[in-house]
Amino acid sequence: MPEPPPTELPAGFSAHVARLAIRDDTDDFLVILSDRPAVADAVFTRSRFAGPSVTLSRRHLADRRLQAYVVVSKNANVATGPEGERNAGEVVDRVAEALGIAADDVLIASTGVIGWPYPMDRLRAGIAALRPPLDGQDAVAAARAMMTTDTVPKVATARAGNATVVGMAKGVGMIEPDMATLIVLVCTDAEVGPEVLSGTFRSVMARTFNALSIDTDTSTSDTAAVMANGRSGPIDRGRFEVALNDVALSLTRQIARDGEGATKVMEVTVTHAASEAQAKRVAKAVVNSPLVKTAVHGADPNWGRVVMAVGKCSDDTDIDPDRTVIRFGGQEVFPTPVGEADRDQLSAYMAGDTVAIGVALGIGDAAFTVYGCDLSADYVRINAEYTT
Amino acid sequence: MPEPPPTELPAGFSAHVARLAIRDDTDDFLVILSDRPAVADAVFTRSRFAGPSVTLSRRHLADRRLQAYVVVSKNANVATGPEGERNAGEVVDRVAEALGIAADDVLIASTGVIGWPYPMDRLRAGIAALRPPLDGQDAVAAARAMMTTDTVPKVATARAGNATVVGMAKGVGMIEPDMATLIVLVCTDAEVGPEVLSGTFRSVMARTFNALSIDTDTSTSDTAAVMANGRSGPIDRGRFEVALNDVALSLTRQIARDGEGATKVMEVTVTHAASEAQAKRVAKAVVNSPLVKTAVHGADPNWGRVVMAVGKCSDDTDIDPDRTVIRFGGQEVFPTPVGEADRDQLSAYMAGDTVAIGVALGIGDAAFTVYGCDLSADYVRINAEYTT
Repeated sequence: MPEPPPTELPAGFSAHVARLAIRDDTDDFLVILSDRPAVADAVFTRSRFAGPSVTLSRRHLADRRLQAYVVVSKNANVATGPEGERNAGEVVDRVAEALGIAADDVLIASTGVIGWPYPMDRLRAGIAALRPPLDGQDAVAAARAMMTTDTVPKVATARAGNATVVGMAKGVGMIEPDMATLIVLVCTDAEVGPEVLSGTFRSVMARTFNALSIDTDTSTSDTAAVMANGRSGPIDRGRFEVALNDVALSLTRQIARDGEGATKVMEVTVTHAASEAQAKRVAKAVVNSPLVKTAVHGADPNWGRVVMAVGKCSDDTDIDPDRTVIRFGGQEVFPTPVGEADRDQLSAYMAGDTVAIGVALGIGDAAFTVYGCDLSADYVRINAEYTT
Repeated sequence: MPEPPPTELPAGFSAHVARLAIRDDTDDFLVILSDRPAVADAVFTRSRFAGPSVTLSRRHLADRRLQAYVVVSKNANVATGPEGERNAGEVVDRVAEALGIAADDVLIASTGVIGWPYPMDRLRAGIAALRPPLDGQDAVAAARAMMTTDTVPKVATARAGNATVVGMAKGVGMIEPDMATLIVLVCTDAEVGPEVLSGTFRSVMARTFNALSIDTDTSTSDTAAVMANGRSGPIDRGRFEVALNDVALSLTRQIARDGEGATKVMEVTVTHAASEAQAKRVAKAVVNSPLVKTAVHGADPNWGRVVMAVGKCSDDTDIDPDRTVIRFGGQEVFPTPVGEADRDQLSAYMAGDTVAIGVALGIGDAAFTVYGCDLSADYVRINAEYTT
C-alpha cells in the first residue's frame, strides 16, 4: 500500500509524537491538542474485557467535550487490574497538567499487548516534555505513531465549506494479534453543536467502521472519537455529514486493504431486504465466511459458497432461493449462470484488487454494504507465528 | 489419521457400495438397508438453501420410520431447481422399488458440488443393480463411499447390553469447499420406541455434532439420522443413551481431527455459567475465533486472545473479568500467570494434538463443551486453490 499524501490537521489542532520505547524503538506516544475545548463524541468497544483507557474515556465523554487525544501504542493496558486503572488515570492527569487543560477533557486510547503494565517511568518522562502548543500539524506522523502491525499510516481528509475534516486510523483487523485495537481519531474545525455532532458521527460510524469486519474478532480497546473546535465557523449539517462520511469510508477501505495478510478488499452489498438489519446480517454472513473469503483470495467466482453463506441466516425465514440473485461486480452468476461470452471478463474482475459481491433478496427495499478482505495463508502465518 | 478398525453393521442391516462415476472414479453411491422397517429420527441443516435431499427426507421422517439410507456423494443436488427435485424423487422411488420397500421409508442424503444436476443415467444403472439383502455389513466401506475431501472414513461403535450402535460420518468441516455437508448415519439393532429414540438422539446430537464447529460455515445439506430395527430386543434407556453418546462423540472428534488443514483438535469447556446457552455461546466465541485458532496452531498459550474472545459476548453483561478464570489443559493462565516452574509443561501441552481450553465464568452452575480444530495455512490453501 502507498503512503498517504502529506496532510495537515485542521486549524487550532497541534500534535506531538514521541518514542518512549514502550515496547520497541518506533513512535509510540501521540498527543493531539485543540487550542480550545471542542465539542466531541466517541464510540467504544462493547467488549466485556474493555480496559481502563476505554472506561476512563467513556466517563470523560459524558459532557461531550474534549480538548486532547492521548494514544499509547504497543501496550493495550488491558487485563492489568487495579494497577492498570491507576496508571491510566495518572497518564491522563499528567498530560492535562502539562497542557494546562482539564483532566476530564482528555481522551486516552491504548493499543498493543494485553496483560502487561505500562512502563510508567518512560511515560512520565515523555509527558514531562509536553508544552502547548504542540510541535506541528502533521496528520501522517500522528497516524504513524499509533501503528502496531499496520504496514502504512491511514489518513483521510475532506473539505466542507470553510471547514476541514481530518481522520487518522490504525488497525489491521477489527482486532490484530495481541496488538489489539482499531483507533479512529477525527479532528475538525467545523462549528457544530453536540447534538448534531453526535447524530452525524454515530450515523456515519454505523455505515463505515461498524460495517467493517476483517476476521470477526473484536478488540478490547476499539475507540473512535471526533473533536470539533469551531475555528472555521458554522457549517451546513448535510455538507458536514458528507465530508465526515468521505473521511470515514476512506479510512475504512484503507484498513480493509491493510488487513492482516489481505490481498483484496471485499465489499458485500445486500439489497431488496426486508430491513437494514436483515441486509447487514446477511452481508456480514457473506463477508465473514472463511469459504467465501478464501474463494475471493483464489479469484474464484464461486457463487455456491455465497449461496451457502446466505443460507446460514436460517432465522430469516423470508429468504427464499427462488427470488435471490447473486452478482460478482455487475455480473449475475445466480440463478442465471455466466454465459461463455462473459467468462473472461468475470475472471479478470475476480483477479482485481476489489471484489464487490451483490446479493438481492427480492423481499423489500432495504440495503446495506459491509467491507472486509480476503483470507490468505499469510493471515494464518502472521497470527500463528506471533507468540507471547 | 489412521483408518478405523474393521466394523460390522448391527444385526439386520446390510450395505451396498458402488462407483457410478458421479464426478470421479471413487466410491460414490451407498445404500444401507434394514431387513425390517426401523424406528428412526433425523436432524437436518437449517440452511435457507437446503436442497431436495433434505426437504424430501424431512417429509419421509414424519412417521418416524425408515428402512433404508441412500447417499449420493460428489454431487450435492443443491440449487438445481425443479429438475433437482424431480431427480431426488426418482432416485428414492427407484431404490424403494428395487428393494421392495416403501418410498417414504427411504432417507436420501447428498453431498458434493452445488449447482450441478445428478447424472441420472448413471444413477439409474446403479440402482438397477440393487437386490436385497445387500452385499455385506462392512461399515468402514460404507463410510468410505460417503467421503468427498475427507482423508479417512469415520466409524464408531459401542455396545449397550445385547445391542450394538454403529455410526458412520463424513465431513471435513461443518461444511467443506463445495463438497458440502456433514452426514452422520447411525444404525442400531436395539429395540426402542420412537419417543425414546428421538429424545436420546436429539439430546446426544446437541452435545456432540451441534457442539462442533470447524469454520463457522454451515452446509446446505447437513443430515444426521438414526435407525433402530429392534433385532436385539428391548434395552435400558440409560445404557442406550451412553452408547449413542460414545459413538457420536467419537465421530465428532474424528471429524474435528480431519478438519480441513487441521493439525490439532480444540475442546473448549465453559463452566460456572448462568445457563447452558450462555456457556455454549461463550465456548463458540472462543472455538471460532480465528485468532485463538491460529494461536493454538502456533502452540502459543496466548490467553490474551481467549480474553478477547470471551469479551466479544457483549450481550452477556454478567460476564466480569474480575471473576473469570482461564486454563489451558489443567493449568491456570489468567488471572494468575503461569509460574516459571510450570512453563515447560505448558509448552509441551500446547504442542500436543489436543488442546483443551477452560473458561470458568464464576456466575452459576451451567457448563458446555464445544469441539473444533486449529486454523492452518493449509485450510486457506485447500479452499483458495479449489476452483469451480
